[in-house]
Amino acid sequence: MKFTIKKNIFLENLLYVSKALSSKNLIPILSGIKMELKEEGLYLTATDNDITIQSLIKIENNNIYNIKENGSIVIQGKYIVEIIRKLTEEEINIEVLDGLKILIYTENSEFNLNGMNANEFPKLELEENKQPINLNTKIFKNIINQTSFATSNQETRPILTGINFKIIGNIMECVATDSYRLAKKIIELTTSVEDNINIVIPSKNLIELTKILDNDDDLLQLHIFNNKILIKFNNILFQSRLLNGTYPDTSKLIPDSFNLKIQAKANEFYNVIDRASLLTFDKEKNIVSLEINNNKMIITSNSPEVGRVEEKMIIIKETEENIKISFSAKYMMDALKTLQCENAEILFTGEIKPIILKDPSNDNLIQLILPIRTY
Amino acid sequence: MKFTIKKNIFLENLLYVSKALSSKNLIPILSGIKMELKEEGLYLTATDNDITIQSLIKIENNNIYNIKENGSIVIQGKYIVEIIRKLTEEEINIEVLDGLKILIYTENSEFNLNGMNANEFPKLELEENKQPINLNTKIFKNIINQTSFATSNQETRPILTGINFKIIGNIMECVATDSYRLAKKIIELTTSVEDNINIVIPSKNLIELTKILDNDDDLLQLHIFNNKILIKFNNILFQSRLLNGTYPDTSKLIPDSFNLKIQAKANEFYNVIDRASLLTFDKEKNIVSLEINNNKMIITSNSPEVGRVEEKMIIIKETEENIKISFSAKYMMDALKTLQCENAEILFTGEIKPIILKDPSNDNLIQLILPIRTY
Repeated sequence: MKFTIKKNIFLENLLYVSKALSSKNLIPILSGIKMELKEEGLYLTATDNDITIQSLIKIENNNIYNIKENGSIVIQGKYIVEIIRKLTEEEINIEVLDGLKILIYTENSEFNLNGMNANEFPKLELEENKQPINLNTKIFKNIINQTSFATSNQETRPILTGINFKIIGNIMECVATDSYRLAKKIIELTTSVEDNINIVIPSKNLIELTKILDNDDDLLQLHIFNNKILIKFNNILFQSRLLNGTYPDTSKLIPDSFNLKIQAKANEFYNVIDRASLLTFDKEKNIVSLEINNNKMIITSNSPEVGRVEEKMIIIKETEENIKISFSAKYMMDALKTLQCENAEILFTGEIKPIILKDPSNDNLIQLILPIRTY
Repeated sequence: MKFTIKKNIFLENLLYVSKALSSKNLIPILSGIKMELKEEGLYLTATDNDITIQSLIKIENNNIYNIKENGSIVIQGKYIVEIIRKLTEEEINIEVLDGLKILIYTENSEFNLNGMNANEFPKLELEENKQPINLNTKIFKNIINQTSFATSNQETRPILTGINFKIIGNIMECVATDSYRLAKKIIELTTSVEDNINIVIPSKNLIELTKILDNDDDLLQLHIFNNKILIKFNNILFQSRLLNGTYPDTSKLIPDSFNLKIQAKANEFYNVIDRASLLTFDKEKNIVSLEINNNKMIITSNSPEVGRVEEKMIIIKETEENIKISFSAKYMMDALKTLQCENAEILFTGEIKPIILKDPSNDNLIQLILPIRTY
């Protein structure tokens, strides 16, 4: 294997695939990036057995030239990224010697690195589906950002560490919950699926994915299999395992009717909760109390050692009832951050019933928070 | 004590003094900021018994108004900074109740905090000298940045954890060394001192100071005492203890004559060392080897497991000799960062003799690095 490659493109793609490098490093080959030069270009692949990322740098546009021979090698991921990052030249020469040594050089720099045999790298099936689901990249990224924070990070119920994607016809419903709060997003697809889909994707894998997704309107493809999902965009394949098990039925958790419906400026409400959370008694649970009294909302919290805070804000009240209720400031702030509207609609049913947050103008995104009893 | 204060000015000054808050928190009162309202304005003071910072917010310019009563209180530093930061109003009302409770409020927010009695705060003597030394703020900051990194961080020889300031007449010499490298900066003062000065200021305290020093040409004043130094700038007093003991005589460490004198592009040399340091055998010692051969410099290093790197660069050679020498890449990079010139002058006497780095056009700043024997 021997070729010359544009530094910036090489680095960009190394950074994409390095998101899949195993940080635990138990199996040495998984700390490596497989480089494979073929007819169409250079494939870079990394995997930690949980996610696999493969990127193709196409030969076109003179990205790669001076090609002498195709071939493959596995190279230590941590070092190659740092070396390419720190080389200041625009073009970098790569040469593999004996299939086990790799030479990286420019006019004045020469790195001789020990590689690993590409045959030792896991055989990865990155197969595609005949009927992938097409989705706008920005919308998919948004789904993950608006739901993933609500997944559980505890392994006691592994299924709750993932986001549930359910597709019936052309309606995709995405749900995340840690059993104290729930985020639910509904998207209309451009085409319908033939068979219903109901899968759970590990949330941490999707968060890694968002780091390499562009913020644009390009389409990405979801290729869904029994135990894995392949997400294809630009020149990148991102594969994740799926979580086994049945996702709990959350459809009955969201109340149908409410006693109290208010609207509050989302940004102001966030700031009020943020300040109140400075003086919460239990830093872990982060509890603040809310009281609605006519068109006034009063948020209080106190830490016996430090002091007490009381915040007031004016709200728009759409029903008669008043309420006193307590909840986690952190959960409320997490939920508020996902709203992309000026006013948040907040719905209450009772002081031990779920609180709902949403955009007043549509029901596509629902954030649910369970209150906390304080007496 | 009761007054209204502009939020931004209050926050800015709280952040200045909070640099002196004790992070260890062994003595509760040292986690507090003393607020004292007097005729001329509001004094904020914090100390960890090692450094003390006092800031005065003057009443002028309507910074403080609606004053009802002077007084003082100590308030928990961590909380007050966060509360003031998160209040969105431009003006904040402060009121002390019973000398032990503090009320911070705006139109819609009200914080009731437990304070501490100002009488329990350490009595600090922030006295000034009759003949302070005047110095340009930017120049003083530069001295610290160009020397402090070379101080020792080991408590085995405490005196080496400080920067030595020696003033004779109008010449100030600033030296830092950890006994493996040395940084020396010479400054000409605008006026002469009557008595020679020879003090050692803890490096970590000076680094804290640089965080609150402006990058401008305003003058600051050094008020030097037997066991402490007071640095006065803008509306701030910064006091540090001095280190006890005699600073070692370093004047003979810098060779008078050299066998080999070269010039190298400072930035390119930095990049070359940076890349070579990626593959050093011992990450701790970070050793790279340098060879000068006519007008070529070759830098090599190798890590048996990972691989080997060789970097070349063209230099200007001003003497005949060649050399092979090894040194810490980190130390060389630290030293190179302090040079503010395009070309670095590098001087060698032999492979076990100190390496000197400097600006070819002046001797105000000398960086010395001891080589490392590799055989």
